[in-house]
Amino acid sequence: MADRYQRFASTGPGRLLVRRLGLPNPVPLRRHRPGDPLVAAPVLVGGDGRAVDAVRAVLKAAQVDTRSTAEADARYGALVFDATSIVDSGGLRALYEFFHPVVRALVGCGRLVVLTTPPEECADPREATAQRAVEGFVRSMGKELRRGSTAQLVAVSAGAEAGVESTLRFLLSGRSAYVSGQVVRVGPVDTVPTVDWERPLAGRTALVTGASRGIGAAIAEALGRDGAHVVCLDVPAQGQDLSAVANRIGGSALQLDITSGHAPGRLAEHLRERHGGVDVVVHNAGITRDRTLAKMTAQQWDSVLAVNLTAQERVNDVLLGADVLREGGRIVGVSSIAGIAGNVGQANYATSKAGVIGMVRSLAPVLAARGGTVNAVAPGFIETRMTAAIPLLVREAGRRMNSMSQGGLPVDVAETVAWFANPASAGVNGNVVRVCGQSLLGA
Amino acid sequence: MADRYQRFASTGPGRLLVRRLGLPNPVPLRRHRPGDPLVAAPVLVGGDGRAVDAVRAVLKAAQVDTRSTAEADARYGALVFDATSIVDSGGLRALYEFFHPVVRALVGCGRLVVLTTPPEECADPREATAQRAVEGFVRSMGKELRRGSTAQLVAVSAGAEAGVESTLRFLLSGRSAYVSGQVVRVGPVDTVPTVDWERPLAGRTALVTGASRGIGAAIAEALGRDGAHVVCLDVPAQGQDLSAVANRIGGSALQLDITSGHAPGRLAEHLRERHGGVDVVVHNAGITRDRTLAKMTAQQWDSVLAVNLTAQERVNDVLLGADVLREGGRIVGVSSIAGIAGNVGQANYATSKAGVIGMVRSLAPVLAARGGTVNAVAPGFIETRMTAAIPLLVREAGRRMNSMSQGGLPVDVAETVAWFANPASAGVNGNVVRVCGQSLLGA
Repeated sequence: MADRYQRFASTGPGRLLVRRLGLPNPVPLRRHRPGDPLVAAPVLVGGDGRAVDAVRAVLKAAQVDTRSTAEADARYGALVFDATSIVDSGGLRALYEFFHPVVRALVGCGRLVVLTTPPEECADPREATAQRAVEGFVRSMGKELRRGSTAQLVAVSAGAEAGVESTLRFLLSGRSAYVSGQVVRVGPVDTVPTVDWERPLAGRTALVTGASRGIGAAIAEALGRDGAHVVCLDVPAQGQDLSAVANRIGGSALQLDITSGHAPGRLAEHLRERHGGVDVVVHNAGITRDRTLAKMTAQQWDSVLAVNLTAQERVNDVLLGADVLREGGRIVGVSSIAGIAGNVGQANYATSKAGVIGMVRSLAPVLAARGGTVNAVAPGFIETRMTAAIPLLVREAGRRMNSMSQGGLPVDVAETVAWFANPASAGVNGNVVRVCGQSLLGA
Repeated sequence: MADRYQRFASTGPGRLLVRRLGLPNPVPLRRHRPGDPLVAAPVLVGGDGRAVDAVRAVLKAAQVDTRSTAEADARYGALVFDATSIVDSGGLRALYEFFHPVVRALVGCGRLVVLTTPPEECADPREATAQRAVEGFVRSMGKELRRGSTAQLVAVSAGAEAGVESTLRFLLSGRSAYVSGQVVRVGPVDTVPTVDWERPLAGRTALVTGASRGIGAAIAEALGRDGAHVVCLDVPAQGQDLSAVANRIGGSALQLDITSGHAPGRLAEHLRERHGGVDVVVHNAGITRDRTLAKMTAQQWDSVLAVNLTAQERVNDVLLGADVLREGGRIVGVSSIAGIAGNVGQANYATSKAGVIGMVRSLAPVLAARGGTVNAVAPGFIETRMTAAIPLLVREAGRRMNSMSQGGLPVDVAETVAWFANPASAGVNGNVVRVCGQSLLGA
């Protein structure tokens, strides 16, 4: 998992060479540690839309030094702009006017966040056009900022302003270190629960599949840290690693092959009898069986689809049908850049991961009706045992072709899952958020 | 505009080197010439959904040799599969079963097309999931096929089957040479007009802005070839080139700066008085003023937004408001990969081009109510005077980072616009189709 180039680039001669030759400069990313402030420097807030008061309230609650006017020589930890009041393309100039003078004043690993209205909620085509245009601005800024900074767009439904807190806290903090260039939708909900931001999942039960290592283990750890009792599930062959993870976080281990016919029923029974139900279900278990389609065996197709998609659907059906997933429950899927853009040699994998996107979108109204949500992460290049096995040149290309010029860590995916799982994220439903450092790859 | 690498790769030693070193292999793409058959080899059709009869009828009308069963040693010009009958993730195996044995039998510059149901129209989440999953399959195939072949997904609304002809003809023919990995939506309409496929725009009037050169000139030529009288518009400074284009295609030239206050009104007057209205409006005029946001002047922001977005909106408002755009009229915008993914140094351009996407989406219901459509092309790397000015290495990267390993030509964008403009494309509304050879870049 060593990124030797990044280590070299942070040495004296490395820094010199990187600057002279214009090479990728992967700075160490700011990642959240318990007790860290939300942002390390003052936050400049602009715009006069319907969401700006909610933004200020969140920053105040988080004890962030918030400014409304840019000052010469000031440095900012984040630049937040409420663009919801822009009603036509001429009004987009407000983006230029706010960001142009201050974009260089953003600290390393800084944050740029713009709030908009979801275009399809705008009655006037001109307003919808302008609100949609902001996406091009934000994605460009993500690519221009460099030095570990990120840019995000939060599309807030009218009436959902009070529900942005968990999303703003995630995006401003080091928890979103490897998330950039994303569009997050926050919809209206009846009530947004009050949470202890240090332990938002206290008293809740979470299930994480494929939890014995890599991204799954990191997800289990993050949810455990946030207060959940985590049921760590994996196949019996991974039993030893699984127990180690479960023990480390005070959770429990469950050995089960989720593709077997009786698995969903047994899982439901376990969750109901031992835990009285479950609050958070993370479908992380996944496999690859890479081959071009012409060389792929039927077994390779079947096994990938079975583990990565069908098993998740069967588990959902049972948990939802028998009300094992509690009111307000969360389902989190794991898609992939390959599921968004397709990939050579991964027709089976990409099909399954595109299916996860379909699952999220189609179940979102089902979950909303129960006060819950369903979302997915779509990891890009994450440093794991799997990516360490990729040949050097391909691995280097994958690592550098993103706005961070580096691979992400399993914890980056885990923090994104934890944000979805947070009870305060009640309005975050039907989202697929890439954890890819704004990878250049896409569709 | 010379792609020297492609020329070298097609020589004897070039071919050898390309094969030995695994270098990109940009084959000459099949492009449509008058009189060409739709496809050069038999078409294999599979699947048993609600759209397959319509597919067969289209192929029969186009006098294509159509097969239903794969034969050993046969070669196919296209593989078309109707996936609308797949109701769950297990059923996706039908994709594997149909394509696995025959994918290698596809000729160079062949076509792979899969028809689905738009996921949001599926009542059952499992069906929606499976239909959405197909997208990952198609995008992967686009990347695997090589040798100039393309892969597309056509999402056909229930009841819209009879409206797929113009789309199938476009995607199967050499007109879609540089379009791959795309998702096209065909919705239901009351009636799909019968057209002369050689001159579908006979008797119609089209307006093309920025028509004096490059992509705009190619669009004017394609619409002229298809039978339209084309009003070629550009700024007075381009007057000479503009007249040359208009004369070449038997159209008329109109010198006008569309950003000026009175331009939309004058344009409307011209179209009404000289042509009794307009049937097709192509907003091609666009400019770049590249700078990172920190260095960008307000004038650079304003001018790009004014030309690329606001002027188009003002023209639309006048043409729609005064009923200058006739019943069944078409609006076509030109977005960009930068508008989808953002780009360094193009915050103004990307904002305007993301706005074009917003314009298309928000006006689609407005146009539908008048029996018309609005769509956009999003060009990737197209060989023009503009891209010829890009520094060599950046240009080479841009040219090769797509499934065709080459840049597209202006005619590729023009053919896509002509497909949108075709009266038979009545069900193609609200689409943004990339003309990018399935560029790796995206969001």
